[in-house]
Amino acid sequence: MNIDDLPIRDDLRGKSPYGAPQLDVAVRLNTNENSYSLPDEVTDAIGKAVQAELRDLNRYPDRDAIALRTDLADYLGHGLTTANVWAANGSNEVQQQLLQAFAGPGRSALGFGPSYSMHPLLAQGTGTRWIGALRDPDFGLSPSAAREQLERHDPDLVFLCSPNNPTGTALDPEVITEVLAHARGMVVVDEAYAEFAREGTPSALGLIAGHPRLVVSRTMSKAFGFAGGRLGYFAAHPAVVDAVQLVRLPYHLSSLTQAAARAAVAQRDVLLATVEAIKEQRDRIVVTLRERGYRVADSDANFVLFAVSPGEASGDQKVVWQRLLDRGVLIRDVGLPGWLRVTAGTPAETDAFLEAL
Amino acid sequence: MNIDDLPIRDDLRGKSPYGAPQLDVAVRLNTNENSYSLPDEVTDAIGKAVQAELRDLNRYPDRDAIALRTDLADYLGHGLTTANVWAANGSNEVQQQLLQAFAGPGRSALGFGPSYSMHPLLAQGTGTRWIGALRDPDFGLSPSAAREQLERHDPDLVFLCSPNNPTGTALDPEVITEVLAHARGMVVVDEAYAEFAREGTPSALGLIAGHPRLVVSRTMSKAFGFAGGRLGYFAAHPAVVDAVQLVRLPYHLSSLTQAAARAAVAQRDVLLATVEAIKEQRDRIVVTLRERGYRVADSDANFVLFAVSPGEASGDQKVVWQRLLDRGVLIRDVGLPGWLRVTAGTPAETDAFLEAL
Repeated sequence: MNIDDLPIRDDLRGKSPYGAPQLDVAVRLNTNENSYSLPDEVTDAIGKAVQAELRDLNRYPDRDAIALRTDLADYLGHGLTTANVWAANGSNEVQQQLLQAFAGPGRSALGFGPSYSMHPLLAQGTGTRWIGALRDPDFGLSPSAAREQLERHDPDLVFLCSPNNPTGTALDPEVITEVLAHARGMVVVDEAYAEFAREGTPSALGLIAGHPRLVVSRTMSKAFGFAGGRLGYFAAHPAVVDAVQLVRLPYHLSSLTQAAARAAVAQRDVLLATVEAIKEQRDRIVVTLRERGYRVADSDANFVLFAVSPGEASGDQKVVWQRLLDRGVLIRDVGLPGWLRVTAGTPAETDAFLEAL
Repeated sequence: MNIDDLPIRDDLRGKSPYGAPQLDVAVRLNTNENSYSLPDEVTDAIGKAVQAELRDLNRYPDRDAIALRTDLADYLGHGLTTANVWAANGSNEVQQQLLQAFAGPGRSALGFGPSYSMHPLLAQGTGTRWIGALRDPDFGLSPSAAREQLERHDPDLVFLCSPNNPTGTALDPEVITEVLAHARGMVVVDEAYAEFAREGTPSALGLIAGHPRLVVSRTMSKAFGFAGGRLGYFAAHPAVVDAVQLVRLPYHLSSLTQAAARAAVAQRDVLLATVEAIKEQRDRIVVTLRERGYRVADSDANFVLFAVSPGEASGDQKVVWQRLLDRGVLIRDVGLPGWLRVTAGTPAETDAFLEAL
């Protein structure tokens, strides 16, 4: 008796659950976590905020998470308010809700690969037909290439990812405006890594005021070091927030999540202080690998995509991945032949990675 | 510019978000919460458990929630182990995952109404065709009536609800065995209120060993007084757990949720001590209303469904609901003409409700 004997959906048969191996290794640079644990002043603040909720845990949480959404809007700036912001248990849930409201059965979603591998899985999980459009061979995406594929497939929802995971580079803002100008449906810009972008990289948040079909998705997992707390959110026209409320599970965000996330946002000056240190390590990895003759994608994120053999990308990334793991350094094989992705962490983690490589 | 101007799914147009009004009233008996706030020894234990997670909140949580599932299996008994149990952010998410894995586009789910109103909404949200089968006019459900409707519609997934919300009565165990014997697809028994059942009411947990298509859904929101913590779970054959892992969002359960829920399960002797007190108030409401000439459904839950006019059910439940609210008592209009549902809470809350009525 196993899973194949159950009446599961045919499109799930033979599939494996999504997820990188969770291995207990000294240097974990595989899931783009923030390598810095939370300082005492932040854990104290979050602990107090959570403790204050516990007595009334018998009551359901605020279904609309108004206070948290207000705090997140304040953090985002750009004139955004509570009505512009929605939050859920990680940006995966936010994006699942967007697909449920605007895509789903009989509709389609398009993304430009290689990109965040959960986007097609979220489409499958919501019965949405997935259209795998492509980035350029050098992992870039030009406005004209984006527009051409968009017009050819006419999807109900488009995912853009900027900075793009796993390649690391932010999109040319013209790609976003070109897609907004020509998309019939919703345009979701996944900005999970926005806080790590190099100076001068604009966020799509600034375009929300003029584009009611634009959604900018964010997460507290990366820059805020809040991966264990599970808090994703988006900013958009208030009507988009109204729409996802038709499909969200009632009371989806626990009282503890709301309180902990609010405390973390309030401590943002402390938490986001790690961002500059991580960017330094990111740039150090890029520069060092290039000096050693590796091809490396430009990165606006907290990770770096590099070709595993100096010179042309030709090595077997599976072999290199395993050899690094044998040396106690866990990075990510994202399924791109010849390439691997490494998270930028602490200086010591960079040392360990560069030495092992 | 509003929601109708956006390209939302046609089946969502004109809909309103699910949810009872969240009103700030002295006596809230509308969402079947546990009226008892958590005692200090429990809030201390949960607070400590959460605090211990905060330093490493920069890391993703255990994606498989192994420790929590082990604790829940131990609580459930019946020889169940970690591999039999799955957990998510409330039983709504658990049931959504079951629909994604076993129903969804091109498939159907059936429930016997009146029942938990989220079941059809979860079906809609997952692109599952909903089949609204019916309970008997007295809110009962006989094995033959269940079998007849099942065979007529041949659904891919059946929801049973025992004790049934909003009517309160547990199913005759023969209904469950009859459905298991004749259903082609999955059978989900929603036992959100199982801990409140009258003595001698068996749980469907005892049937899992012999029925790999049976899933028993539970929640910590009610008996455990953990509604704000959002923790639902199910028990089933391990292959069912494997199946939902194909559709679950990775890292769906935060480190804080896992730690808080584990601490609450460890404190179950203290937390579940409220169950007997609530059952007393439930029985008191049933007996008192019957003495006053009201028709009342038998209840194995922490709520009571009653006809709003003494004698035959004929009054307008909307008028009675509003008049009770005017007297500071918030109960639930579940949309059943002539009937209202009231949560059994503290003795003082019962006093207030009975006096207001």
